[in-house]
Amino acid sequence: MLEYIKNNDFTNIITGRRSVKLYDENVKIAKEELQAIIQEASLAPSSANMQPWRVIVVHSPEGKNKLRPLVQFNTRQNDTSAAMLIILGDTQSELYLEKIYNTAVELGKMPKDVRDKQVTQIMSMFPQLPRELKIEIAKIDASLFAMQLMLVARAHGYDTNPMGGFERDKVVSTFDLDDERYVPVMILSIGKAKEAGHESVRLPGEEITFWR
Amino acid sequence: MLEYIKNNDFTNIITGRRSVKLYDENVKIAKEELQAIIQEASLAPSSANMQPWRVIVVHSPEGKNKLRPLVQFNTRQNDTSAAMLIILGDTQSELYLEKIYNTAVELGKMPKDVRDKQVTQIMSMFPQLPRELKIEIAKIDASLFAMQLMLVARAHGYDTNPMGGFERDKVVSTFDLDDERYVPVMILSIGKAKEAGHESVRLPGEEITFWR
Repeated sequence: MLEYIKNNDFTNIITGRRSVKLYDENVKIAKEELQAIIQEASLAPSSANMQPWRVIVVHSPEGKNKLRPLVQFNTRQNDTSAAMLIILGDTQSELYLEKIYNTAVELGKMPKDVRDKQVTQIMSMFPQLPRELKIEIAKIDASLFAMQLMLVARAHGYDTNPMGGFERDKVVSTFDLDDERYVPVMILSIGKAKEAGHESVRLPGEEITFWR
Repeated sequence: MLEYIKNNDFTNIITGRRSVKLYDENVKIAKEELQAIIQEASLAPSSANMQPWRVIVVHSPEGKNKLRPLVQFNTRQNDTSAAMLIILGDTQSELYLEKIYNTAVELGKMPKDVRDKQVTQIMSMFPQLPRELKIEIAKIDASLFAMQLMLVARAHGYDTNPMGGFERDKVVSTFDLDDERYVPVMILSIGKAKEAGHESVRLPGEEITFWR
């Protein structure tokens, strides 16, 4: 099912992932492959399968130039990566609910009565949630998507760097999207590493675990 | 490096993941293996490598009984899973910063002057951040960890279900932890599927992607 896969070794993918800040500028990624990476990452789970993640793929020289002043200390990634993926949460993900659940019925993956019950239930509740809670749900789900995307990128032979440091209040409107509707979650640079990322350490598992 | 791995096929792991709600009650997971799963999941990236994820592993019958009234419509997962993993964000993750960065220096993964500069920089900024922003960072990073944990579980031959429906204001204090410090992000049930999860559909990649 997955396309263009170069590395299917799960252990290698998760133990070898590094935050890569400098990329080989000569390595571009075709639009079709970027789309495949996004599609595969979207196999992540989400609240009520509403999939509130959206992605601005900044890959043209013009797009990179527009983004550059907004990425603070992350200009190297912007300048050298094949693309900068601005991961957004959609606070109006309910607009796609019927489409998602109808497709599930059409493909025989959900009985029609289950669809009817669940869509009614979600639509009676979700649109009325406070905006802050919708943003929180969208950010958590979009983060699940982002993690899976970083691993999928490695399977495709590419590297990434997740970034929190950028102008959150400007990045959505700069690319002509509605910044009331879409909230930025993080930016992932993607490309072929020119310089290996640093190895980093983790706390011992016992220090982060409470047994009950 | 990874222990107890039964399935190392990345494509199978991500395409075969389902939200599993009913588990084989006879299949327990040893404490050592649960700890290995948590350790492997913590290879996820985080802001400034501060690793703000924490996990309450609810695996004893007493723990499950205490959790049961707090999981709303998710009692099947609580009753049948090997464990319920309550994923928390630590709003005081700076308490571990020196330990993390010192270990990196000791293991030769970071030059001492880089450590000094970064620790000084982070400690001059992070503790003063507004509580809401610390919570947001912790939730995003803990979600990256949670996604990786769901995939690591599959590599170990287990299944999971991410849950947002539970009593967020009670779950931390019920297990005798400081609910000012730790914020719940989601619960993951983990165990051996008794009943296969449902296949679900995803929006076409083009509908969630903006090219710039």
